[in-house]
Formats: sequence, structure tokens, C-alpha cells
Amino acid sequence: MTKNHPTEPIAQWQRRYREVRDWTVELCAPLRPEDYVPQPVVDVSPPKWHLGHTTWFFENFILREQVADYPLFDERLNWFFNSYYESQGPRILRTNRGNMTRPDVDTILRYRNYVDEHLQNWLSSYADGTLPTELADLLRIGLQHEQQHQELLVTDLKYILGTNPLYPVYRDSAAPATGVTARPLGFRPIEAGLYEIGYRGNGFCWDNELSRHPHYLPAYAMADRLVTNGEYLAFMRDGGYARFELWQMEGIEWIRGAEISAPLYWYEREGEWFQFTLGGLQPLDPHLPVTHISWYEADAYARWADARLPTEQEWETAARQWQPNDFSRGNYVEQGHYHPTVCTDPTDYQLAGHAWEWTNSAYLPYPRYPRLEGALGEYNGKFMVNQMVLRGGSCATPASHIRLSYRNFFHPDKRWQFTGLRLCRDTE
Amino acid sequence: MTKNHPTEPIAQWQRRYREVRDWTVELCAPLRPEDYVPQPVVDVSPPKWHLGHTTWFFENFILREQVADYPLFDERLNWFFNSYYESQGPRILRTNRGNMTRPDVDTILRYRNYVDEHLQNWLSSYADGTLPTELADLLRIGLQHEQQHQELLVTDLKYILGTNPLYPVYRDSAAPATGVTARPLGFRPIEAGLYEIGYRGNGFCWDNELSRHPHYLPAYAMADRLVTNGEYLAFMRDGGYARFELWQMEGIEWIRGAEISAPLYWYEREGEWFQFTLGGLQPLDPHLPVTHISWYEADAYARWADARLPTEQEWETAARQWQPNDFSRGNYVEQGHYHPTVCTDPTDYQLAGHAWEWTNSAYLPYPRYPRLEGALGEYNGKFMVNQMVLRGGSCATPASHIRLSYRNFFHPDKRWQFTGLRLCRDTE
Amino acid sequence: MTKNHPTEPIAQWQRRYREVRDWTVELCAPLRPEDYVPQPVVDVSPPKWHLGHTTWFFENFILREQVADYPLFDERLNWFFNSYYESQGPRILRTNRGNMTRPDVDTILRYRNYVDEHLQNWLSSYADGTLPTELADLLRIGLQHEQQHQELLVTDLKYILGTNPLYPVYRDSAAPATGVTARPLGFRPIEAGLYEIGYRGNGFCWDNELSRHPHYLPAYAMADRLVTNGEYLAFMRDGGYARFELWQMEGIEWIRGAEISAPLYWYEREGEWFQFTLGGLQPLDPHLPVTHISWYEADAYARWADARLPTEQEWETAARQWQPNDFSRGNYVEQGHYHPTVCTDPTDYQLAGHAWEWTNSAYLPYPRYPRLEGALGEYNGKFMVNQMVLRGGSCATPASHIRLSYRNFFHPDKRWQFTGLRLCRDTE
Amino acid sequence: MTKNHPTEPIAQWQRRYREVRDWTVELCAPLRPEDYVPQPVVDVSPPKWHLGHTTWFFENFILREQVADYPLFDERLNWFFNSYYESQGPRILRTNRGNMTRPDVDTILRYRNYVDEHLQNWLSSYADGTLPTELADLLRIGLQHEQQHQELLVTDLKYILGTNPLYPVYRDSAAPATGVTARPLGFRPIEAGLYEIGYRGNGFCWDNELSRHPHYLPAYAMADRLVTNGEYLAFMRDGGYARFELWQMEGIEWIRGAEISAPLYWYEREGEWFQFTLGGLQPLDPHLPVTHISWYEADAYARWADARLPTEQEWETAARQWQPNDFSRGNYVEQGHYHPTVCTDPTDYQLAGHAWEWTNSAYLPYPRYPRLEGALGEYNGKFMVNQMVLRGGSCATPASHIRLSYRNFFHPDKRWQFTGLRLCRDTE
Repeated sequence: MTKNHPTEPIAQWQRRYREVRDWTVELCAPLRPEDYVPQPVVDVSPPKWHLGHTTWFFENFILREQVADYPLFDERLNWFFNSYYESQGPRILRTNRGNMTRPDVDTILRYRNYVDEHLQNWLSSYADGTLPTELADLLRIGLQHEQQHQELLVTDLKYILGTNPLYPVYRDSAAPATGVTARPLGFRPIEAGLYEIGYRGNGFCWDNELSRHPHYLPAYAMADRLVTNGEYLAFMRDGGYARFELWQMEGIEWIRGAEISAPLYWYEREGEWFQFTLGGLQPLDPHLPVTHISWYEADAYARWADARLPTEQEWETAARQWQPNDFSRGNYVEQGHYHPTVCTDPTDYQLAGHAWEWTNSAYLPYPRYPRLEGALGEYNGKFMVNQMVLRGGSCATPASHIRLSYRNFFHPDKRWQFTGLRLCRDTE
Repeated sequence: MTKNHPTEPIAQWQRRYREVRDWTVELCAPLRPEDYVPQPVVDVSPPKWHLGHTTWFFENFILREQVADYPLFDERLNWFFNSYYESQGPRILRTNRGNMTRPDVDTILRYRNYVDEHLQNWLSSYADGTLPTELADLLRIGLQHEQQHQELLVTDLKYILGTNPLYPVYRDSAAPATGVTARPLGFRPIEAGLYEIGYRGNGFCWDNELSRHPHYLPAYAMADRLVTNGEYLAFMRDGGYARFELWQMEGIEWIRGAEISAPLYWYEREGEWFQFTLGGLQPLDPHLPVTHISWYEADAYARWADARLPTEQEWETAARQWQPNDFSRGNYVEQGHYHPTVCTDPTDYQLAGHAWEWTNSAYLPYPRYPRLEGALGEYNGKFMVNQMVLRGGSCATPASHIRLSYRNFFHPDKRWQFTGLRLCRDTE
Repeated sequence: MTKNHPTEPIAQWQRRYREVRDWTVELCAPLRPEDYVPQPVVDVSPPKWHLGHTTWFFENFILREQVADYPLFDERLNWFFNSYYESQGPRILRTNRGNMTRPDVDTILRYRNYVDEHLQNWLSSYADGTLPTELADLLRIGLQHEQQHQELLVTDLKYILGTNPLYPVYRDSAAPATGVTARPLGFRPIEAGLYEIGYRGNGFCWDNELSRHPHYLPAYAMADRLVTNGEYLAFMRDGGYARFELWQMEGIEWIRGAEISAPLYWYEREGEWFQFTLGGLQPLDPHLPVTHISWYEADAYARWADARLPTEQEWETAARQWQPNDFSRGNYVEQGHYHPTVCTDPTDYQLAGHAWEWTNSAYLPYPRYPRLEGALGEYNGKFMVNQMVLRGGSCATPASHIRLSYRNFFHPDKRWQFTGLRLCRDTE
Repeated sequence: MTKNHPTEPIAQWQRRYREVRDWTVELCAPLRPEDYVPQPVVDVSPPKWHLGHTTWFFENFILREQVADYPLFDERLNWFFNSYYESQGPRILRTNRGNMTRPDVDTILRYRNYVDEHLQNWLSSYADGTLPTELADLLRIGLQHEQQHQELLVTDLKYILGTNPLYPVYRDSAAPATGVTARPLGFRPIEAGLYEIGYRGNGFCWDNELSRHPHYLPAYAMADRLVTNGEYLAFMRDGGYARFELWQMEGIEWIRGAEISAPLYWYEREGEWFQFTLGGLQPLDPHLPVTHISWYEADAYARWADARLPTEQEWETAARQWQPNDFSRGNYVEQGHYHPTVCTDPTDYQLAGHAWEWTNSAYLPYPRYPRLEGALGEYNGKFMVNQMVLRGGSCATPASHIRLSYRNFFHPDKRWQFTGLRLCRDTE
């Protein structure tokens, strides 16, 4: 991540800290105690684990290091809330998180309050001056980290609710509006050329967005909105899941082995399709963007549509031209939709929020990628194999977390995130 | 199960029903909401599932059949609370129980109250007469069934608590008393002869305890108490887990594959052994009976001790001679020990309660076993392969549930129940 | 096994040794070199492994111990040809046998000749006297062991050939005769009583046939022949594999998990059933005894037929009455049928040979079972859990290997042996 | 692959066909019949399968299509020798290849001769003219395809021999020469710039080498030879396999799960390291290039060495500068070394042959990649996810098969190919 950010007043840090921390708890408001516990698949962590793990990050990397004689809330919590940081000692097996009923939610909330109080006190100790740069960087990472887990909180609880035959509603307001028609799909051209890729500016970014570097692109055209449910349904009705020539070999094995024949959360009842949303089970709206698809499905759909997925460089280059200034305005979590919305505005290309867009780029380091030393070096740099890049954020992403140059990454079979797709084509 | 039981007054049924149902809820009193949810291994069901499943049994097999226009509490609950009854329709995969956060505990408790009220009302409708025999039989099975789940509730929550590194206490009173010395082990002879095996009497028994039949036994001697922790520790220190000649081949594969080197819930800390009890983690007391061992371990220990496990016929025959009248007096769950206790009394052979005793008998039908027709035929008769018989009940068994002729059965690798062992030897 | 057999002349040992050893090689005559290699499932060992393992037994347990300065053919062969004898040192993982292309067949045949020559020489050294008892016992076990592997050789190569879409013929003469009608099925009664079970006599028997002991049986009637293909087909056509009430729970899981809907080697082609035999793929003959079924299938069929499987004690008691003298006359491997034959003779009850008959007895030690010390103690005694007893021998069993009291045992899901079933019923 | 190759005389095609086909058989000369059969892991196909599959390709894609009334050798062979071509009908499960003892080697060799004769006759029918372009393309692909399987034949049989405790020698001449010292390692700089990547020329290339396109590279320096065994051993002795900060997260899971602590075929005996080569088990020579390592190991080593793996574009750009003309001269299979050799020549950078070099590039389509239609579209284009690119060929690659622009690809955990690594570093 970039260094030497401009100095910020302590009060601003304190407010920012409080806002981010409160939002995590606010996202949990509709949950019942039981909802906090399970880990139905290894990717989905228990909501109460997210509450604890984000807190552990501040205690372990800041308070324990910076505050003299800081008394740990309970030293045994490291076993529970360390995730994959090999350098930070032993921990509960990742597959075992859902079996740990203790610490319970009440205890974890007390843990949060305890750490928050100590953290704010620690910040106050700098009230007459400014936070040293390296500590500001660390705190910033802690907050960005918590925002990532806010998104996971939403998608993980969607999985917990959406695979329960009672289809519990998270928030009534999350039921998508109906009766809105998506505008027609178009392709917009980009000229061939040598483009700059990567983060530019002097705010925060992750290490994996660096270094900024030139990348040559041939001419191409990229779709001006996401693919819709209706378009995807046409692919399904055309036998898409059975036409092996459309798929990667590993995709064929995946759909066969996992018996996949529709996006996640699509349920067929007597010939009609329904979709689980955070507002409950709803009839499938063909105008909504398709979401909860794997890279394999996105790739197969694109081939069926006589197109392909964009590379992340193509996506970033188009996005810089089409939405240069205001990437923080989009369908993000604060909008309260908790679902992609229908594209109606001819000037909105759905680049910001809605659904993470699978690209045809593997998640690899950029040229001169600055892998960090120490524990934080485990943050992004140790996942750079066998994953694909996604761009643009989703309806579960905090607006202040995302950037145009932001690189998300998942294995190609994952679809419990709000994932979607945009088409791309070669041009002369 | 035996038929034509003596007629009982309705009020007695009502009291009995209320007592059994209340005791289930009482067992859950120390739990926090989170503890009700997980299924850490497939054998261990979520406590809230036990609450629902036992209730479903009464609703599904009695109310729905017997009460005209009975409105189901929620027809969707069949998916959740049917267990293995193939004849009763589709259900959540057994491995998925721990992922179902809804119905939540509050809803399930309302379900219990709802069914209890209807059940009592239904009983009241017979207040002027008596319950028809077949309905009395059904109700009796429902209550026996609930008692079986009471035992599972205790052992399942022990697993949930005892594999959590915080080792939460279930009840402080469940910590075993210390400082008590076990009396020496002796063997008591039984003469060769043709003995009657199986339930005798005209109370309730399970179908698998029938038919009563003669069985010839050569002379043998059976130990006058259970094997203790201290005796088992001697086996371990003699290299017991590494001496393959003591084990069944499948036992060797099991200890290697699962990396077993001590009973379940035994933890070594800096050279000292501790044991998780429902009263928390405690230093291992050598005088307590060993418990939470598999059949493989029991069998290997017996071979090491130059002995063998008794057959179930040997066990039953000895028990009839040594404890003919009062099998309901023993260390059962109502005692509140929640653990086997030290054997000090020379006239107590620990046959009743404490720990289920592995026998060297496979779980098979007795001669002229009367397999039931219909859904209840799935109760005992469809598990008669690859399991071993255990006898005597445990500290988690309700006293009114057990009998001298009671046959419990588990796969030979299971040890999350309170399982223990007693030695036996051939005599001239 | 019993001791103190009558003394036999050395020349007789030498002839017997040669006959048994030659027969193993003769059974392999139709194989091509490639057929000796694979291990398609863990139960099926490569034919060349059988050739080597039986030889290793003589070298390891006799020559190495008895012959001063005996030079091992190649000490590395112990890795390959030791099977499960923990006491005899490290060995190739059982699952890896099919990956070992060396030693090749030629080398193994040279190994056989080398050991045979040394073994005969060793026997010659006793030509003026008799073999000491313990050595005679060891040699007898080696030969019995080789005969067991002869049966496995036949069934293993049947699996290798019968799961190959080319369905290669082992021997043309092994194609069952057609056009023969099975006689009607009857039940023959046995009176209740206390019967003696176990080996009687002073010849060889395995340890697991001892000790002879009384066992009480209620009155029953046992079928006078095996169940036929046609009878089994009626069960299938009556929906037998889908009627869960007929099955053990583990049987249901097995047929679902392994997608079983017919006996092994039954193939349906355009509505007609065919059966692979060692004489090639043949139209299913309804008069032949059904074979290659699991215990689960046998048990479900019996329940469908309003009957049950006999216990091993019932089987043995009936067999003693019905075929007291000449158990060595039957459809054994020397007959060259390599398949059960149709029952036409009213005085032949198909007890001897044809197909191993599943019983409803678990494989457990008899009272006062004499488990052997040392390496041979691993022979039978370490498999006494989770297996079911089969009786009677099969068309792949050597006639001189079998006895009326012989106890075979397999896990209830196994069916690559020639397994079949006989019905039994309670009588008044 | 490129089209419109210059016309070649039929006689040249006939000679080329014969040479390629004969070489496959020649590679098998040292095998014994048993060696042709097993599939010890799913990646390793039985040698006899390679013999059949390459033949099937010519029969299925050429003879069956081009020759009127061509009689298939045996139509059932499609089941056995189709590999992953979904469009070509059903086939034996890939995991089952090693269980198919028939067709046997003799039959497959007759199949080869039969197809060769028909193929040559078919070519002769064009003797007065030239092969139509599309047929020439197809034939060329068939030959290239066979050459790929020649390399797999060598690596697969190395696995079969090298995991057998007898460590059989393939060819004595394949034992690496000893006593040769590797020259010191240096880094050679490449300037930043926009470089052309992809096949250039008008010969044959695979579709995945197209389209040729510009790619921008910052300045870097690439090592002038491969990493040696000795250098890799230093990494191991420095605790390389236990220092998690050097590894990708998936690499850590891989080495833990598969219990990896050295390259494949390295065996430790009493403190000394040995390496299985096709010339047998040899003491580990520190001067030889390290081979049989996974991408995970290559990546971790590079990080330990304060370097990184080159991207495929960096590799190709350097190779164009350092070895512009003669890429067909290198340590390829025709040299008969069957192992990488020691680097002594200051002007040889080991780019051609020796060992496939892992790059840090995922296997993805180049810009404007021309995915083929029809069955051959399944050739390269359906594997473009989750694999990493390797460059340069190996000691098992035919010289006439390889090119500077050749892209090989494997999953990052694979190491049964001759895989190695070369270091790269950023420069100012």
C-alpha cells in the first residue's frame, strides 16, 4: 500500500474508526443468535467469527504492540480469531470455525467494546500531534480489513439464510424492485494503445494494485452494462450447461461433480424460476443483472454469446474512460439494495458496485509488485496462484473501500459472492 | 416391544408425559443460544435438533394421525426434524443439520409447547376411559424415544463443549469428586449352563430384547467392577496403542488414520493428563472408571490384560445373578454426576449406569426377533449390521429408561457416548 | 488349528506340496502378461502378487527359519509380498500393489521355482524320518494359505476381466450349460435342540472353527437349494432395490452411494440381462443360482421373500444332517465349471461348493477360541469385527480345502467372491 | 495453428510419418510387458494407452473421415483410446485406464501397424499431387500430438519405474555423467521496451502461440542458467520447506497435505541424498540442474534466493536475444541423456531442452487467440484456467516438436514432468 499519506487529525481517525466499527455491528442487527454460529461450507465463516477476527486484528497488530502493559482481553482468543497468519501462532483449523460455540456473541461484543475503548484511548494519546506514518498505515489497513469482512459478513449470512429451506428474510427492504425494464445492451469501442495500469494517486491502495505500469492493448469493445438474468436464462434454455464445447474442461468437471445447472440461489418450482435475495425468495426478474455465478459459468456464457470476458487491463482502461471521476458513486452496500439493480440509465455502465465482474485475468503480481515484509506480507501476496481477478465492487462493498484500480480475486468455482459478468469483443 | 401392558389411568400418562418432556428442557438449561446450533461431527446432532425431533415424533406419529383437523405447527418442519424415517418423506441431509440456524431455539420451544398442549388435550379426550392399547404403545415409544435423545443431548453437548479450547463448564456440580480410592478388582465365577436371555416381564421393552430364548454358556468369570483410568493408563504406558498384536486389524487402521493415542477428552499438558468432564477440564483421576473409549480400544485393553470382553449373554446372565431386583438404582442421569463414579462399595458391581459396557457381541436379532411393520419397523431392526452391543446404561441414561435386558449398539469406532469396559475370562 | 495330526510320510508331503503349487500356476495359464498387473479395486490383488505372496509365505516362515544359511532369493521381495503381517516388517501399501510392475511375472516364476526347489530339498532332509509336528503344522498352513489365494486368484481375475468392456473369456469351458431347469424350492425342518457347533475330528482346521461347543437352536426350516437368478430377478422387478423397508440402513446408503441396482457382473443391454461368467458374457440364465451379491442384497432379498438368512449355527446343523459324510464332493474349482450350476437333483441341497452362502452371523470368536501367538496369530483372529460369516465354499474353492465347519468371512458390501444365498424360516 | 504452410511432397509426409511413429515404439523398447499396464496416479497414463491413443487419433480424425469404406480395426477401441474429446463419444473413465489389461500390447501393436498401413496407403493416393491444405494441417497435428505423447511416455514410465522400490533402470546410458562442475550463475540484463510476443514465421505452431502481439516489459535481468541441485539443497538445508513466508498459501497446504520435503525422485538414505534417473538410482549430483519440482517449490525457491520467476514474456524476450537462431539444438530426447545435463559452456544458457522452466504466467489466451472450432477446439483452448506456463522444452521433448514460442502448461502442483526453474530479478 502507498506510504506517506497526508497527515490527518486524530479526531478524524477517531470518527472514522467508530463509523467503520459501528457499521459491522449494524450489519448484524437482523440476525438471531443462532445465525452467528455455522460454517456451512469452508468459505463461509460464522458471522460471530467476523466480529471477533476484525477485533483481533486491532488488538494483535496495534494494541499489543503499541500500548505498554496492555492487558489482552483473553489471550485464548488468538486461537479462535487468527485466520491464516502463520506468523501469529497456532489457531483453530479453518474448517472448525462453525463448531466453536464459545466465545459466544455476547462475549465477542464485549471484546469489541473493550478493544474499541483501548484503541480510542490510544488514539487520544496522540491528540496533541499526529499519528506517526507507520501507525497511520497500520490503522488504515485495519479499517480496510474490517470493510472487507463487512462484505464477507453480508455474503456469508446470505449463504446461511439462502440455503435454509425456510428462506428467512434478512431485511424486507432488500427485496428487489419489480417492473423495471433493462435498457438494451451495447458495445463501446476502445482504441488500441499503450495504457497505464494500476493505482495512481496518493491515497490508500493495496499492494496488489502496484506498481503502476504500461500495458499494451489491441482494439476492443466492451459491453455497456452487465449481463441480465433474462439473457442468462436464454443461455440455459439453449442447453448451455450441457454444451461442453462452451466450457473449460475444469468447468465441465465442476458442473458434473457439483451437479450445477443454474446460478447459486436459483430454485425451480413447478417450472418457474425463483431467486433467493436478502429480501427473501422472489420470482426471478429477467431484468436484474445475473449474479452468484462462477468464473466457469461466466466464461461459458460469454463464449455462447460469441464474446469473451475482458482482461482486467481492458476493464480498467475502459472504466478510466467511462467513469473517470466518481467511482465511489454506485450500487454499494450503503444504498441498502443488497442486490444488483436494473440498468435503465443510458449513461450508467454499471461499473461501480452491483456485482464483482469476473475477468479473464489470473490474479498475479503486477510488474515490480512490492510484496510486504512481516505478517502483513501474508495479506495479498500469498494468494497469487489459481485465482481469477474480479473488478468493480458489489452491492455488498462499502463505498469508501473500493477504487477503480481495486483487484479482487477468487477461485474460479466460487459464487457465494455477488459475482456477475460483462462481455467483451475484439474489434478491428 | 411387548404388547398388552396393564391399563394405566390417563392422569398418570399426562404426568409421565409432562415429566419426560420437561426433563429435556431442563437438561438444556445451562446452554447459551449458540450451543444449540452446531454439528461438529456427523454423529453429534445440534441440541436444538433434539428438541425439535422429539417433538416431531409426537406430532407426526400421534397428533397428525389421531386428532381430526389437527393443524400442523408448520408443515415445513418435517424437513428439519425427520431423522432417518424413509417412510416419512424428504428431509434435510443428516450432515446438514448444523447449518440450519432456523427454526431458531425460540421457535422450537414454541413448537414444543404447541405440541405438548395438543397432546395433553388429546389425552384428556380419553379422560373417562383408558387409552386404547395401540395408542398407549405408541405414546410409550414416543416417551422412550425422547429419553434416548435426552442421553444423546448430554453426550452431544459434551462433545460441543469438550472440543472447544475454552473447555466450558456445563454444570459445576458435574466435576467428579476427588480423593476417593477404587477398591481392588476381582473376578466372580458363573457356572456353565443353559440360560434364558432376553426380556422377561410384562412392562415395556424394545423389540430387540425379544424373543426370550435359551443360550448355552461355558463357565466363565466376570470382573466385579469397571476398568479404571489408572488401569487404562498402565496399558498406555506399556505402549498399548503401538502394540499391533493387541488390536483388531480395523482397530490398527482406525488409530493410525484418526491419530488416536488416548481416550476421547483426554488431553496431555506438559506431561500431565487431564480429562474434560461436564464439570470442566480436570486432572485425570486414576480411580474413576475409564470412559469415552471405542470398542477397538476396549478389545485391545482386554487382550493386554490377559482377558477378553464378555458377550452380551455372559453380561446379562451375570447381571441377573448379581443385581436381580433393582436395576433402576445406579449412577444414572438423575443422580447429577454426569460422569461414572469411583467404585468403593464391595457389593456394588457398577452394572447399572456409570458407562455403557462394550461387549464382544455384534448387534443382531435374537432368535424369533419380531421386526415391526410400518415406520416403527425402522426403529431398531434396520441397524442390525456392523454394530456392537453395549450393556448397562450410563451416567447420562434416565433411570426409568433402562433395563437389565436393554441392548444398546454403536459402531466399534464410536466413543462420544459414555462408554467403558469390564473384563471377562474363561474358567475351567 | 488342531495339533497332533497323525504322522505322514515325507513323500506324501512332497507330492502334496507339488500338487498345490502347480495348481496355482495352472490357474494362471489362460492369462496374458498384462492381466497379472492391475489392482482395479483395493480388494482385488494383482494375479502376480498372489504368485509371489504365497511363495513368500514358505520362504519367510519356513526356509528362512529352518534352513541354515538359506540365501533369500531377493531380500527386497519382502516389501512386495508381505501382506498384512505387521510383525514381518515394512511393506508396499496395500493400495499400491497394482502400480508395481516389477518384479515381473518371469522373475516371480523364477522365485517360485527357487523356493520350491529349496522347500523340497528341505523336506528331503527329513526323508528318513518324519516332519516334527510344529513344522508339519506350519507347512500345512502354508498349503492351506495357498489354496485360499487360489480362490482369490480366480475371483480377482474374474473382476479384472469382467469389468473390461471387451469381456475377455478366461476359459471357454467356463460358459454355463444352458437349457437346464432348476427344481422347485422346498424348506426342510430342523427340530429345536442343543447342538454341537465347530470342528470335530482330528484333521486340519482353522483356529476360528474351534472350540467345539453346544449351541441352542429353536425349531426352523432351511431351503433345500440356493436362490436362483430368476427368483432374484423377480425381486428386482418388484422394485426390490427401491423398497427401503426391505433393507438395512447401511444397505440403503450402500446402494445409493455405489449406484447399485443389480448383482455384480449383471449388464443390461436393450432390456435384456446378461451376466459375465469366466466363459464370457452370456444371456442371464434364470435357473442358475444367483451369485456375486452383497450381504445387504442377500438380506433384503430374504426379507422380500418373507424369510431370513440362516445363522451359521443353523446352517452347520442342517448341513450335518443333510450331508454328513461327503462334504468334499460338490461344485468346487476342480470341476472346472467356474460357476454355480443348476440344481436338478432332489437329493442335492447345494451345500457344498457353488457359492458361499451369506449367513446372519457376525464373524466372532467361538467360545474358548484359541487365538494363536506370534505372526500366525494375525491370520484369523485380527479380523473379528464388522464382517459376516459365509459357509459352504464355492465353485472357486479347492475341494481339499473346504470343510463343513469352515467359516469364511467378508464385509457385508463385498461381492466379488462367488457369493449366494439360501433362505431360512422360523417354524413352530 | 497457422495455416497455408508451403506445399510438401507426399514422400516427405510419408517419411515424416514413419519416423515419428517408429520413434514411439523405439521409446518402449526397454519395457517389459508389465510396465505397459499401470496408472499409478491419474496423471500418469499406461504406456500401452499412449500407443493406442496416438493411433486412435489418426484413425478417428483422418482414416474414418477420409477413406471411403475404411473398416475400423475394432470399433470398441474408441472406448479405450479416446481421451478427453467430449465430441467423440463415450470412453473409459480416465481414472480407470490402468485397470484395462485388454486390449493387450500385442493387439495394440497390431492396431498401430494396421492404421499405419492404411494411413500410408491413403497418403499414396495423393502421390501425383499434394495433400489438400486442411488435410496436411490435420496430419501435422496428428504428428505433433504423437510427439507430445512421446514426452509423456518417457515421464510416465519414469514415474512407474521411479516409485518402485527396485528402481529399475530404463537405459544404462541414461545415468548422468559425474564429475562435471557447473559454471557460476550470472544474471543478464534486458532493457525495458515494447516487445513482440508469440509465434512468428510460417511453419507450424499451436493455436495458443497466437496471435503475435506487443507486450511492454520493464527492465529486468534473467539468470544465465538453470538452478542446480546443489543450490536447491542449500534452500532445503536452510529450512526452506518449513519457512511459510516463502510460500504461496496453496503451496503451504500442498506440502503439508502431500508431506513434501524434497523434489520428486529424491530419496534420503542414512543422511545421503539419492536421485532416481532413467539410468537408475544415483547419488545426488549437486551440479546437475534441479528437476521434478512443482511451481510452488520453484516459486518458494526463487523468493528464498531474493529473486522471482520470469513471466513467459520475459522468458521469450530474453530467449529471442540470447538464442535467436537455433532453438532446435539443445538437450532434447534424441540426445539420449534423458536428464538435464550440467551447464559448463559460458555461451549456453540452457534455454533449449533440459527442463521445462516454470514461469510466473498463468496459462491464458493471448490477445486475439484463435480458438479452433470442432473437436480440435478441445485441444488447447479448454485448459486455460488454473495452470501455469512452462517454457523451453526438456530432455524428453523431441527436437522437431519444440519452438522458442512454445507454451507448455501444467497445474502448479505437478512435478512428474522434467520441470526446473530459472531466476529473474527487477533492474533499474
